[in-house]
Amino acid sequence: MSFGVIDQLDDQGEIGSDTIILPLNGHPYGELEPQGQAIAAAEVKLLAPVLPSKIIGIGKNYADHAAEMGGDVPAEPLFFLKPNTSVIGPGEAIVLPPQSELVHHEAELAIVIGRFCKDVPRERVPEVILGYTCANDVTARDLQKRDGQWTRAKGFDTFCPLGPWIETDLDTSDLAITAHVGPELRQSGTTQDLIFNVTEIVHYVSSNMTLLPGDVILTGTPAGVGPLVPGDEVEVEIEGIGTLINFVHSERTS
Amino acid sequence: MSFGVIDQLDDQGEIGSDTIILPLNGHPYGELEPQGQAIAAAEVKLLAPVLPSKIIGIGKNYADHAAEMGGDVPAEPLFFLKPNTSVIGPGEAIVLPPQSELVHHEAELAIVIGRFCKDVPRERVPEVILGYTCANDVTARDLQKRDGQWTRAKGFDTFCPLGPWIETDLDTSDLAITAHVGPELRQSGTTQDLIFNVTEIVHYVSSNMTLLPGDVILTGTPAGVGPLVPGDEVEVEIEGIGTLINFVHSERTS
Repeated sequence: MSFGVIDQLDDQGEIGSDTIILPLNGHPYGELEPQGQAIAAAEVKLLAPVLPSKIIGIGKNYADHAAEMGGDVPAEPLFFLKPNTSVIGPGEAIVLPPQSELVHHEAELAIVIGRFCKDVPRERVPEVILGYTCANDVTARDLQKRDGQWTRAKGFDTFCPLGPWIETDLDTSDLAITAHVGPELRQSGTTQDLIFNVTEIVHYVSSNMTLLPGDVILTGTPAGVGPLVPGDEVEVEIEGIGTLINFVHSERTS
Repeated sequence: MSFGVIDQLDDQGEIGSDTIILPLNGHPYGELEPQGQAIAAAEVKLLAPVLPSKIIGIGKNYADHAAEMGGDVPAEPLFFLKPNTSVIGPGEAIVLPPQSELVHHEAELAIVIGRFCKDVPRERVPEVILGYTCANDVTARDLQKRDGQWTRAKGFDTFCPLGPWIETDLDTSDLAITAHVGPELRQSGTTQDLIFNVTEIVHYVSSNMTLLPGDVILTGTPAGVGPLVPGDEVEVEIEGIGTLINFVHSERTS
């Protein structure tokens, strides 16, 4: 595993024939030092761009999704944790566990923290953010309701696809966010509709716990969540970042 | 930081004048190789014996505590996560955050996982356990009720004291577990009253997510949870392990 800068995406913001990767010495939370090589991106397998010490999810952070779940919008950000054993990268398989009969996709903008921080004032939030990536907060909807606590429903292995890369230069005030399952558009929203925006989220979460470099915060999902079944291909696309594509397999006993 | 074997505890199972520490090369999840030195334990500061990649807590796992919380006993283990930024060691301070007016102690037996594992059959559970330590699952009771999700209430920095060490040879079927706050006995139970015992817990949790070496599972707390206030000294004692002592400070604005 190594880190690198991705250069020259194509007109659609995807890896094209001219896209190259410039490998880096060290890691992205310190000084960036290119190794001086260039590798064709098409010859590289992208892993999840970060392995977080913790993943914090914000629940019900779009009004239309809170409504489809039958709940009110929370007065403060409501958060939960996903274990880092749930992380997979682009192109890897989401595995449906035998415990659930109803697993949903949730397309989300993910914040990647770049610095050790606590009690971050709103005006200093940009200093602690390394960048942004796409996430799929995969959720076993039946277990979420049955358990009450969301940990198990959101914590299965493979339930946190992240990628395809971290975009470090991005204005998150109004980005289109979509989820497709095969050709079907399931979710279509904009980060303009976030109830708590990126600044508020980082300020709030960091007032409750210390954040470490590489920690990931999932900012919530717009309306349109729906089931994943074996054989599905699910795409989370965020304007200005790119597209995170994963496949769905089953571990269910027949 | 280094790992070591603690030898010759006194009659009360505490560090005495004869207690020595034998430092180890490597780490406790691989082969143990003593360095050949011996250090007086009284001259050493013990840190938390493990920094977990994840901490899984089991809720309402003693009937008397489920009753005092006004809830039923769950049909399956109900679990939640605490972030590893909540871990502190013996003798360190639990810091009461300004967000809460009611922070409770919860004395718990903690399982320390020794091996990468998934779907562990009951008969193989002993193979994946490195040992046991004492834990205090510190909880902001007011926020736990207000939020519904328990993550924030249980996730503040310093809310997971662990220690004083990992006992690797222990029968957990009937161990006395107590919490004292100052001289007052607050909690007194036995692991015989666990609704889901250690074997069931590891089997169940590992069927839901992969466990990594060093991961910690908190097995739940008996009745008698109660408030911590600045200046308190809180002791969690478990028969066959030892005593975890922490002090309580306030970060609250006056």
